[in-house]
Amino acid sequence: MCAQYCISFADVEKAHINIRDSIHLTPVLTSSILNQLTGRNLFFKCELFQKTGSFKIRGALNAVRSLVPDALEGKPKAVVTHSSGNHGQALTYAAKLEGIPAYIVVPQTAPDCKKLAIQAYGASIVYCEPSDESRENVAKRVKEETEGIMVPVGGGGMIAGIAITIKALKPSVKVYAAEPLNADDCYQSKLKGELMPNLYPPDTIADGVKSSIGLNTWPIIRDLVDDIFTVTEDEIKRATQLVWERMKLLIEPTAGVGVAAVLSQHFQTVSPEVKNICIVLSGGNVDLTSSITWVKQAERPAYQSVSV
Amino acid sequence: MCAQYCISFADVEKAHINIRDSIHLTPVLTSSILNQLTGRNLFFKCELFQKTGSFKIRGALNAVRSLVPDALEGKPKAVVTHSSGNHGQALTYAAKLEGIPAYIVVPQTAPDCKKLAIQAYGASIVYCEPSDESRENVAKRVKEETEGIMVPVGGGGMIAGIAITIKALKPSVKVYAAEPLNADDCYQSKLKGELMPNLYPPDTIADGVKSSIGLNTWPIIRDLVDDIFTVTEDEIKRATQLVWERMKLLIEPTAGVGVAAVLSQHFQTVSPEVKNICIVLSGGNVDLTSSITWVKQAERPAYQSVSV
Repeated sequence: MCAQYCISFADVEKAHINIRDSIHLTPVLTSSILNQLTGRNLFFKCELFQKTGSFKIRGALNAVRSLVPDALEGKPKAVVTHSSGNHGQALTYAAKLEGIPAYIVVPQTAPDCKKLAIQAYGASIVYCEPSDESRENVAKRVKEETEGIMVPVGGGGMIAGIAITIKALKPSVKVYAAEPLNADDCYQSKLKGELMPNLYPPDTIADGVKSSIGLNTWPIIRDLVDDIFTVTEDEIKRATQLVWERMKLLIEPTAGVGVAAVLSQHFQTVSPEVKNICIVLSGGNVDLTSSITWVKQAERPAYQSVSV
Repeated sequence: MCAQYCISFADVEKAHINIRDSIHLTPVLTSSILNQLTGRNLFFKCELFQKTGSFKIRGALNAVRSLVPDALEGKPKAVVTHSSGNHGQALTYAAKLEGIPAYIVVPQTAPDCKKLAIQAYGASIVYCEPSDESRENVAKRVKEETEGIMVPVGGGGMIAGIAITIKALKPSVKVYAAEPLNADDCYQSKLKGELMPNLYPPDTIADGVKSSIGLNTWPIIRDLVDDIFTVTEDEIKRATQLVWERMKLLIEPTAGVGVAAVLSQHFQTVSPEVKNICIVLSGGNVDLTSSITWVKQAERPAYQSVSV
């Protein structure tokens, strides 16, 4: 598989060894209410409890630690990225662990709270114009000026890594992707059989999956992901609020996309023999003040039933 | 100790055997951020993951199961209470497990969402006037009409049970109580050396601790609780939001009272030798729509660090 795809299962194993001393073994929780609602046994992998609040620390730390021995003159001088979301947080934390300064490229128009947050992580802000082009150009310039290393933001990295691993360990297990209808590049690509990036910046509450899948992840998704389920913005909000109220887990809406998929009408077409389903709750960095605008009055009691 | 207090450690053990098949063994989580903030090692007992979303199912189920064999003519005909909060939910769930109808006495002025919630739990609503007197009178009438059993709402039950248990198992462990300054009957009682119930209905966001401690729990609190820490409404809100953002656990503000106490200035007077501290996160039945009014824009990043 090494030749066929950008990573092999051996790479996944190596990455795990590389980072396991610094990440949490996050718990897997269950909920009898959500089992009842879906008629299946759901297992929630709680990556919202991971260091930096999302699974992104895994890739970021692996990248930084893999790059360290590659640097000709010892440690890299800096790491640079232009994500101020989960990847930016994760990269900054990883850089701090390795004693490397981090630079985050941010549009001048970004809200103050985000700028304050980046500084609080211990990273430096570098401003750019609010366009993709300026973001990339500025990041490149910073990389050159600092002799730093650029750590790109992924697109489809989590599902690609999971698919490689599952199909190596137990190919009979199905791998399903879940995607917002408003950012359905993965679905469109599978449908057409070729990589179809989102044409415009997608408008979805699931901000963690706005970026399109890339050249590295597409072949893995094309071949190893069994099916893709798209969900509406309302379905994402309802699923997110359901997990908050019933499971008491403060997931971010991006992590609600998988839950929404399993709760959807469309998912009922999946054979009832597919009884046990694991859902990755990918992160918990939710902006509480903006959630305020869409949280709905609960109509039913907050009966709760999480267990480990 | 049996003679001295209303319960003994043997009663606690018996209760556990009585209910253990139907409750969760909830996890204990830690947070490196909260350890840093307090300079101690904190262990969070996650009763917000308990059945019905709070620890209250323990007492409710023990009460219902203990009463069943006592009933002369077999099962009791009904259970009746006038709590529409965590205890009401827990009692209804316990009654359902035992196949007994539940009646909840609610003021006519209660919000519709609470009424809908009670019906969704499978309980019947009985209306009363919005006064303590009417509530108790109506509950008594329903009890007589249904030949039901009244399961009273506790006050200080959790701390009393914990104190009895800790002091039986390892008396050197300190037991601290945390209380809102706006509902400080426990603090005032300890100060005066006699039971001093709250004179007026207290105004606190920690709605689960509005009721005063009672005749049964007072002697235990008086003798076995080492100290009491009071916290302001702002401290409770800040601690609750901190647990949401850093630990991704959707606790209710009542569960934030203990966290607020450990974070408070006053708690720094506790010897640094008291290094390991367990905090019970008592419940997670938070009203998201009302929380909206007090959630503040986060000033710092949502670095996260829960582990099991």
